[in-house]
Amino acid sequence: MPQKVRIALDAMGGDIGASVVVPGAAISLSRHPDSEFLLFGDRALIDPQLERHPALKAASRVVHTDVAVSMHDKPSQALRRGRKTSSMWLAIDAVKKGEADVAVSAGNTGALMAMARFHLRMMPGIDSPAIAGVWPTVRGDSVVLDLGATIGGDATHLKTLAVMGSAMARVLFNLERPTVGLLNIGVEEIKGGEEIRAAAEMLRAANLPNLDFIGFVEGDGIGRGAADVIVTEGFSGNIALKTAEGTARQISEYLRNAMGRTWRSKLGFLFARQAFRALRDKMDPGKSNGGVLLGLRGIVVKSHGGTDAEGFAYAVDVGYEMVHYDLLTKINQMLNRDGSAPAAQEAAS
Amino acid sequence: MPQKVRIALDAMGGDIGASVVVPGAAISLSRHPDSEFLLFGDRALIDPQLERHPALKAASRVVHTDVAVSMHDKPSQALRRGRKTSSMWLAIDAVKKGEADVAVSAGNTGALMAMARFHLRMMPGIDSPAIAGVWPTVRGDSVVLDLGATIGGDATHLKTLAVMGSAMARVLFNLERPTVGLLNIGVEEIKGGEEIRAAAEMLRAANLPNLDFIGFVEGDGIGRGAADVIVTEGFSGNIALKTAEGTARQISEYLRNAMGRTWRSKLGFLFARQAFRALRDKMDPGKSNGGVLLGLRGIVVKSHGGTDAEGFAYAVDVGYEMVHYDLLTKINQMLNRDGSAPAAQEAAS
Repeated sequence: MPQKVRIALDAMGGDIGASVVVPGAAISLSRHPDSEFLLFGDRALIDPQLERHPALKAASRVVHTDVAVSMHDKPSQALRRGRKTSSMWLAIDAVKKGEADVAVSAGNTGALMAMARFHLRMMPGIDSPAIAGVWPTVRGDSVVLDLGATIGGDATHLKTLAVMGSAMARVLFNLERPTVGLLNIGVEEIKGGEEIRAAAEMLRAANLPNLDFIGFVEGDGIGRGAADVIVTEGFSGNIALKTAEGTARQISEYLRNAMGRTWRSKLGFLFARQAFRALRDKMDPGKSNGGVLLGLRGIVVKSHGGTDAEGFAYAVDVGYEMVHYDLLTKINQMLNRDGSAPAAQEAAS
Repeated sequence: MPQKVRIALDAMGGDIGASVVVPGAAISLSRHPDSEFLLFGDRALIDPQLERHPALKAASRVVHTDVAVSMHDKPSQALRRGRKTSSMWLAIDAVKKGEADVAVSAGNTGALMAMARFHLRMMPGIDSPAIAGVWPTVRGDSVVLDLGATIGGDATHLKTLAVMGSAMARVLFNLERPTVGLLNIGVEEIKGGEEIRAAAEMLRAANLPNLDFIGFVEGDGIGRGAADVIVTEGFSGNIALKTAEGTARQISEYLRNAMGRTWRSKLGFLFARQAFRALRDKMDPGKSNGGVLLGLRGIVVKSHGGTDAEGFAYAVDVGYEMVHYDLLTKINQMLNRDGSAPAAQEAAS
């Protein structure tokens, strides 16, 4: 583990760029004073922001580029135009070269994934990347993956997701043996593809020391916190995430309308303002802001594009934790330990 | 169209049975006086309930059976044990024999689907069934399908779902040309399976007079009401539905906790009680209670198993509307019209 956690920031990513990235990094630094930063982007935009945050300025080095990946670029366009020059590429490149331990970007997800995969390459034994997110639940936070990096995949892919997700939950939630559930649908006998059942068999047979497989979880189990880690392929994971966000937004709107309807409810709202603020914080997507790209030879964190400084700080925190508690080593160890027990797998299948 | 809408009820389905089914039917009858009912189940449980609802009693005939499909039976078990004898089977059988226009059951979804498919069989040109639900959105209600009847499926299957869903939206929402969106994930270039893109091509090319295809919709578009009909295969549809339910429950719990925390928020709650009641009604899964089994040679409605009389009444209402506005004919017409225009499809593909 390095003395300091070295964090590369794409200071031009996201809808707002440096005006969110720099204050966000400053917040995270105040929580983790053993961080240092490499900021990639337009110096004319970064420097004035840094002036306002002297502690961050002292812990940062700025590398100028005025090439930015647009939120609307397709991954292939981004690779063509932004390779070797864009702030996003340079942040990833710093990880590749060992100058940083983690890259954080609020930019275009598809571009970030394509660049990270192209430049960092996959970990040995892993075929395709995943995006893992921290999902607020009634019982605390859970890790949910894959949120959309890879569509479909066989039982081995699902098992790899389970291993990577539980490594992340160990790091983030400080758990010895996180519970892991496979997302499935509840109708008996048409219960999901064969690959999900086969993955369940494999996870049961492997009986990993750092992964407590609890079986299938339905969609409503995510918000209930039915497991510390919820595993599904990228299509249904993305649908689940977006549907939950849409439902939260829908209920906020209902609530706002219901509260503004009569003088009684308006008065009630005034009295309950604190409570509503607490609720809004719970429902705030910024709070669960920090998708981690998993499966790569390096750590890359995707922050929400439309976040504020506090949300970006949370994404930087997630990156910090991943480095500080050595996520990649944990994933490697779990994959290798598992690879050494093929007999147990065969016996149970 | 028959003079009266004849509704067959599985009076032993659901967690509660006749004590919910009978009062629910009574509520629906008060809204649609041109209904009549066949009630299948244990006469000893049904008759006392009917005594309390004389109008319903006058419009009903009870057919006794004491065989019930359990909520825990697997579909194959239900078919083995409950075929020809169970209340669920007999309700479906009444539709098969033309003695009823629609069957409504709050029983075990898998069993209902298996029995309906086995006994009613599929409509010509449709390979696999779907469950369609009414989803409350910010903009009003939408039809979402498939909620879990059939996992996966090719472009033709998705197109058939679009046709059936828009027929249902025409009937329920009284629309000439409902908007239809295909559920997809937003990351460019890994945008969902090939089958979704191919289905989009087919729907565009078909340019159906009663279906306004608007393209892809992401998960958060469902609650936003981005289209009158949202189409996806059964796995992701079920995940979306359950995840939304879980999120709504999670937010209710946050709200309850937030409201009970301080005397201020408790007081606020008292003033805003009406507003909260309105919100609860909006979020009530009972309100959107009525999954319709589509693709069969007959109409079968699945009510939520844990619903109350008002929720069951809503499911009966949905069944009534489907018959009254002739859902099956509309589906058939759309499928046939489409089949007669292969030239247009080829030209655009």
